[in-house]
Amino acid sequence: MYRNDGFRELERQECLRLLAKVPVGRIVHTRQALPAVLPVNFCLDADGAVLLRTAAGSELVRAVDGTVVAFEADEVDAATHSGWSVVVTGSATVVTDPAEHERLVRTGPRSWVPSPREVFIRVAPELVTGRELVGGRSMYGLDLSS
Amino acid sequence: MYRNDGFRELERQECLRLLAKVPVGRIVHTRQALPAVLPVNFCLDADGAVLLRTAAGSELVRAVDGTVVAFEADEVDAATHSGWSVVVTGSATVVTDPAEHERLVRTGPRSWVPSPREVFIRVAPELVTGRELVGGRSMYGLDLSS
Repeated sequence: MYRNDGFRELERQECLRLLAKVPVGRIVHTRQALPAVLPVNFCLDADGAVLLRTAAGSELVRAVDGTVVAFEADEVDAATHSGWSVVVTGSATVVTDPAEHERLVRTGPRSWVPSPREVFIRVAPELVTGRELVGGRSMYGLDLSS
Repeated sequence: MYRNDGFRELERQECLRLLAKVPVGRIVHTRQALPAVLPVNFCLDADGAVLLRTAAGSELVRAVDGTVVAFEADEVDAATHSGWSVVVTGSATVVTDPAEHERLVRTGPRSWVPSPREVFIRVAPELVTGRELVGGRSMYGLDLSS
């Protein structure tokens, strides 16, 4: 997050409350040494960790397991120039503990269309930041200091 | 983009046509060695470059000028499990040529609220990729191979 941009910074709890409202965010990682970003559906665990569900052996798993990623979600209204953006930054790990996997099968995100063998990816909520854009202020406001 | 995930890959022209439909995307870059992602309004130049307008001296400018970034936009309907995502990957540079700057003042993106001194950032369309999610298929489909 950039400082001195005139935006309202959101508290961690406010960020998590907003994240819980939306079904889809974007996982930002590095792939073949290039920045990569991919929309994914998700849900939040009780501690604020972002949970994704994906096919075992997918390229996403190989790309993010054990790395630090950012997970972003936003809602922006271009007509009123208002909205919010939240980013969770932290280590991504595949859930390997069988009991934890079973818990997430029951309570974690659902596949929109299931794959035969799936795993859960957890993004630890090490850094949770967000900002709110008030109508009429600069959309660069979502990103820019003056 | 990940292969073998059952998604429809979009052609470059189709990607640019979709990008032109939406006012806001997300610039993905590295900030203090961490992945960073920020919503921004934008427009496309004739060659498919992504044009952003921001305050001169902003932290975004310092973070991305001269680096390779990804710019992503998407539209996803969680109810029908359909949508698209497009990513432009390329070098980000601040426009320093005065004539080019003047051209972009006339034809480039508008500030939602202007800042006293603004610059344009151009993301070269070195790699333009996209995929379409057809309703009823896996949302992981937006990212996952099986």
